[in-house]
Amino acid sequence: MAILVTGAAGFIGTKLVEFFLTRNKVVFGFDNLSRGTIENMRDFVHHPNFHFSKLDLSDFNDFSRSLSALVRLEPVEEVWHFAANSDISSGILDPTVDLKNTFMSTFNTLQVMREFDIPVLFFASSSAVYGDLGDQRLAESSGPLLPISNYGAMKLASEAAISAAAESFLKSAYIFRFPNVIGVPATHGVILDFFRHLERTPERLSVLGNGSQQKAYLHVDDLIAAMHFIRENAHGKINLFNIGPEDEGVTVKFIAEQVVAEVSEGAQICYGDTEKGWVGDVPKFSYSVDKLKALGWSPRFTSVDSVKEAIRQISVQEKK
Amino acid sequence: MAILVTGAAGFIGTKLVEFFLTRNKVVFGFDNLSRGTIENMRDFVHHPNFHFSKLDLSDFNDFSRSLSALVRLEPVEEVWHFAANSDISSGILDPTVDLKNTFMSTFNTLQVMREFDIPVLFFASSSAVYGDLGDQRLAESSGPLLPISNYGAMKLASEAAISAAAESFLKSAYIFRFPNVIGVPATHGVILDFFRHLERTPERLSVLGNGSQQKAYLHVDDLIAAMHFIRENAHGKINLFNIGPEDEGVTVKFIAEQVVAEVSEGAQICYGDTEKGWVGDVPKFSYSVDKLKALGWSPRFTSVDSVKEAIRQISVQEKK
Repeated sequence: MAILVTGAAGFIGTKLVEFFLTRNKVVFGFDNLSRGTIENMRDFVHHPNFHFSKLDLSDFNDFSRSLSALVRLEPVEEVWHFAANSDISSGILDPTVDLKNTFMSTFNTLQVMREFDIPVLFFASSSAVYGDLGDQRLAESSGPLLPISNYGAMKLASEAAISAAAESFLKSAYIFRFPNVIGVPATHGVILDFFRHLERTPERLSVLGNGSQQKAYLHVDDLIAAMHFIRENAHGKINLFNIGPEDEGVTVKFIAEQVVAEVSEGAQICYGDTEKGWVGDVPKFSYSVDKLKALGWSPRFTSVDSVKEAIRQISVQEKK
Repeated sequence: MAILVTGAAGFIGTKLVEFFLTRNKVVFGFDNLSRGTIENMRDFVHHPNFHFSKLDLSDFNDFSRSLSALVRLEPVEEVWHFAANSDISSGILDPTVDLKNTFMSTFNTLQVMREFDIPVLFFASSSAVYGDLGDQRLAESSGPLLPISNYGAMKLASEAAISAAAESFLKSAYIFRFPNVIGVPATHGVILDFFRHLERTPERLSVLGNGSQQKAYLHVDDLIAAMHFIRENAHGKINLFNIGPEDEGVTVKFIAEQVVAEVSEGAQICYGDTEKGWVGDVPKFSYSVDKLKALGWSPRFTSVDSVKEAIRQISVQEKK
């Protein structure tokens, strides 16, 4: 039985593929290569158990046709749907980006799962579904869910469609809500942005917002471990879990200073004067992972450790 | 300044149009006439302040072009977006129905509002966004939101897109979550189904499910009054309100008996043996309208009164 990973050339997708290949699974990987790259997959792209297709998941006919050919090789038992538009601010300018790449990709994934009788779905959701609930500690049952970015909106829309599908034809669904995930291969995110900025202007780093935005950061290795722990230990029809560190997160200022220290010691850091970095940015949130802890899992890294580790790793990546 | 009502030929849409016309507003009405009818609009279709267009809102270009012609007559200040697929079970068989008519109609409404600088949106959401939360009393902040029908999923997806748009370009948005709304002109729903069933087989009424499903019913006159009360008294960026009666609702058995008494005295009522009427049916829920009461509004009718009044009205409608 094979596993289908969407977004297989992306940041988390590549880690998932590696995880399954080392466990001797056959893996079908789909990606539109808009942000993901073949280079990200260099360690496994020629692995005999891995079959990659470049594919736009928002094109249902193409999606269905490609999968139809593959299931003749090996039936699919699980879909790990991790394809999405990862550039939050692009979705504010043009909501159709998130519509296509984040929501329609999910809607079509559900349609093909029905078509090919694939029973179990794992979905990469996001803390962005919570919007800005102020000082409330964000638990899975928190509400009202009023996302402030199209990215968050289309992740919530995807959760909703998955939930209805679980009632109708899926055997079970796993919905993971995670905050900023960091590590390598980094394809997007604040740390990489700072590295690239300092490459262009080594003497000066301009930060969006006043630097006080405080967020939880999860290292991708912790994320992969947590998802597989949940997969082994949660057996509901719909298994909805926050995954994140237990702390209150770190500020953008901390990250800026750490990146400067790593890559361009002495560079000047210039802050804006707004509390939010951009429209759709949630300036501060604290995350409850009590449900996950009750299931028996705790993260290995704090936000501080995750950020420091990711900076080290991205530094190596960017020197290549 | 004009008001755009989508779903203008539908059950609630016609009531809205009447409401605004009696207040001397110019009203643009859009409807695809899939369930709504010109007949529903007979009292105002020729009114000089009403302009009707038959239109598929999921076709963005058509939507934008039609509105573009109208805003030259009169700029639009508010959109009341009430178009949706109202046939919940059809969306279980084919999720693309709700995708197009419930979600994409909302997504495109937001796109045209941005295009034509229309500042304020009123949206018909649904208690279906709550899914089946068991015995929990459903308040606006209840969660997790795991809808069990595609209808509910696409309403939640719409709320999410509206929420992101409010952060980005709308001046304000009103999201009304209501349970079953009844009254005339009835175009769908359990009471009308029972009338039509007894017209075919006057001696026998078959009920989906065991009749114990218990739900709150809101009369459309109460709904219209509540929405306008909220419009006058709530001034947040996003104004999210449950609207419903204060009681625990009535059973399907009660409704079946009332309809039989009205239309076909002595008919045999046959129940199924499942708790749910169909996939996606929420067998029981109780609704909190505390937020609306705190704003100062209480419903005129109980669920029992609403059902009895709607049966009387539908009886007149069906005899025509």
